Amino acid sequence: MSRTELNRQLHLVRRPAEKITPLDFRLVEAPVVNPGEGQILVRQKWLSIDPYLRERMNDAKSYLPPQPLDEVMAGGGAGEVVQSKHPEIAVGDQVIGLGGWQLFATMNGAAVARADTAQAPLAAFLGAAGMPGITAWYGLRKIIAPKGGETIVVSAASGSVGGVAGQLAKLSGCRVVGIAGGDIKCRYVVDELGFDACVDHRAGDFDAQLAAATPAGIDGCFENVGGVVLDAVMRRLNPFARVAVSGLISGGYDGQPVPIADANMFSTARVRMEGFIVSDHRELWPEARAELAGLIASKRLKYRESIATGLESAPGALIDVLEGRNFGKQLVELP
Amino acid sequence: MSRTELNRQLHLVRRPAEKITPLDFRLVEAPVVNPGEGQILVRQKWLSIDPYLRERMNDAKSYLPPQPLDEVMAGGGAGEVVQSKHPEIAVGDQVIGLGGWQLFATMNGAAVARADTAQAPLAAFLGAAGMPGITAWYGLRKIIAPKGGETIVVSAASGSVGGVAGQLAKLSGCRVVGIAGGDIKCRYVVDELGFDACVDHRAGDFDAQLAAATPAGIDGCFENVGGVVLDAVMRRLNPFARVAVSGLISGGYDGQPVPIADANMFSTARVRMEGFIVSDHRELWPEARAELAGLIASKRLKYRESIATGLESAPGALIDVLEGRNFGKQLVELP
Repeated sequence: MSRTELNRQLHLVRRPAEKITPLDFRLVEAPVVNPGEGQILVRQKWLSIDPYLRERMNDAKSYLPPQPLDEVMAGGGAGEVVQSKHPEIAVGDQVIGLGGWQLFATMNGAAVARADTAQAPLAAFLGAAGMPGITAWYGLRKIIAPKGGETIVVSAASGSVGGVAGQLAKLSGCRVVGIAGGDIKCRYVVDELGFDACVDHRAGDFDAQLAAATPAGIDGCFENVGGVVLDAVMRRLNPFARVAVSGLISGGYDGQPVPIADANMFSTARVRMEGFIVSDHRELWPEARAELAGLIASKRLKYRESIATGLESAPGALIDVLEGRNFGKQLVELP
Repeated sequence: MSRTELNRQLHLVRRPAEKITPLDFRLVEAPVVNPGEGQILVRQKWLSIDPYLRERMNDAKSYLPPQPLDEVMAGGGAGEVVQSKHPEIAVGDQVIGLGGWQLFATMNGAAVARADTAQAPLAAFLGAAGMPGITAWYGLRKIIAPKGGETIVVSAASGSVGGVAGQLAKLSGCRVVGIAGGDIKCRYVVDELGFDACVDHRAGDFDAQLAAATPAGIDGCFENVGGVVLDAVMRRLNPFARVAVSGLISGGYDGQPVPIADANMFSTARVRMEGFIVSDHRELWPEARAELAGLIASKRLKYRESIATGLESAPGALIDVLEGRNFGKQLVELP
C-alpha cells in the first residue's frame, strides 16, 4: 500500500431531527492514516448496521457518547489487517472492531478481536457470532439462565438478537416461543430457526394466541420490544420468572416512554426484570464468541443476513433497520 | 390448664366485598385442642396485623391460599408455650408462629421459632425482628446489596418494613432517603430513625424534592408503593441500580394495576428490578432474626408499635393498617 492511497469515509454532518436521511451524511475522501506504535490498519470488508447507532446521533445523555459532527460515523466493522505495528496481530489477520463507516480504519490493536474464520465466515462475527449474538448469549445465559423444560419467550424473534436467543434456549432444552410481526417472520422463526411456536403480535387475538402457545406459563423472556407485547407476556409469567431487557424498541429509537401496564407481577410472581448492555461485559465476549462460532461451524446456529453493497449504501441500510425493512442481520459489504 | 378451658377465636364468616368490616368476622368460643405428638399449645400474647391478610380474604389466585370461611382467621402471633409434645420445645418457651386470631393455638412444634427475649421483647419478633424486619433485611441485603457511599431510597419509610430497611442501609454506610406521606412521618424517619433525608410524596414538588435529596442519583430502592412514587425514583436511577419490590400497595390490597410510566431505564441504565416474598426464603430467617434482634439489643435498630388490646380489636386494627391510620408495627395484645 502506498502512503498516498485514499480512504473513503462517511461523516455525520448534522443531527437528524427525527428520522435520519442520507443528507445527514457526507462522503469524504482523506489520506489513509498509517498506524502508529501498537496500532493496525484494517481494510474493512463489512460494516455492521445496528439500531443503537441512531441513539448516538442525538446530542443527548445516554450510555453512549454522542457521535461528533464532521467526523467518521462510528460503528462496528470487520476486515483484513493490511499493516500492523502491534506485536500480536499479523498482516492478513481477519479482525472485528469499531472501525467506523470508512474503507480503511486505523485502530489500536488491543481494541480489535480476531475472527476465527475457520469456524464461521467473517461477516458472522458481526452478527450471530458478534455483538447481536453475544447480546443474545448474555441475556439468555446470564440473566434468564433457563433450565430444561422451562418455557422461554423471545420477542423480535426473527431479528439477529432474538433468533440467536431462541436457538440457544432450544439448545438448553426449553420450549421456545417467538413473537414476531407477520406471518413471514413467524414462519421463518419456526421453520428455519426451529422455535416450537411463534405468535404474530399484529394478530387481533395476540393474547389468546400467546396463551395457547404457552400452556405452562412463561418462565423467562428475552425482551427487546416492550409495550403491549411485554404486558401480555407479563400476565403469563410463572413464579420466579426472569425478564432480560436488551432494549425496548417499541418506544422508538428516540426514546419515547415505554409503559408497563401492571407491575404487580413483580411482587406476586417474584419476577426479576434486568436490563443489560452487552458492552458492559466485554470480559465474557471471547467465551461467547467462541461458543457461537462453534455452533455456526456445527450448523446448530442459523442466521440470516441482509447485505447492502458499497459505503454509500450505509445510511439507507440504517434507515431500513430503523424502519424494520431488513430481514436478519444488516450488513454493508465494502468490495 | 384444664382440658375444658375455653378458647376464643375470630372466624372469617364472609368474603369482604371491597373494604373489610368487623361484621366479616364472628367471635367463637371452642374447647382448647390439646397438642398431639410433635405439637405444642401456645397461649398467644400478641397478634401480628399485616396488610397481606387482606389478600387472603379474597377467593382469588394468589401466592397464598384463600382464608377458608368459618375457620380461625390465619395470621402470625407470639406467645408462651403452655403444653409441649415436641422434644425440643419446653413449657415456658416464648415462640412465634402462625397461630391465627385466637387465644390458644395448637401448632406443630416444627412450625414455630423460638424468640430470644434476652435480646428483644417478644412483640419485636413480630415486627422489627419478625416478618417485616426480615422482609427489609432480605430486600436490602440480598437484592439491593448496597455498597458504602451509595444512595438508597426507601418508600413507605415510616412503616415497619421501610424503617428497618433504611436503618440497615445506614448501617451499611449509605446515604438513605426515605419517602413517606406527611410531615409527621417524615420527621420521624429523619429524627428518630436517622435517615439522611425524607421526602413527602404528597408534596406538590415531590419530584424536585426527591432530586434535591438525591444529588448523586439513586443506586438502590426498597419499593413497596409503586405508581408515581416509583416513577419518580426510576427517573433518577444510576447505572446498575437495583430495585427490590416487596409489594406495590399503591394498587390497593385488592390488586388494582400499578403501571410503570417508562421502562426505558431498564436498558439504558441496566436496572434490575426484583420482586420477592420473604416466605420463599425461610432458610435465611434464623440468620436474619438473630441479626435484627442483636441490633435491637444494642439499640442500633429502632421501631414503633401501635397496640390494640383484646382479640375483638383485631378486625379494627387490620382496617387501621389497610387505611394507613397506624404508625409503626400494628399489634393486638391478648391480655
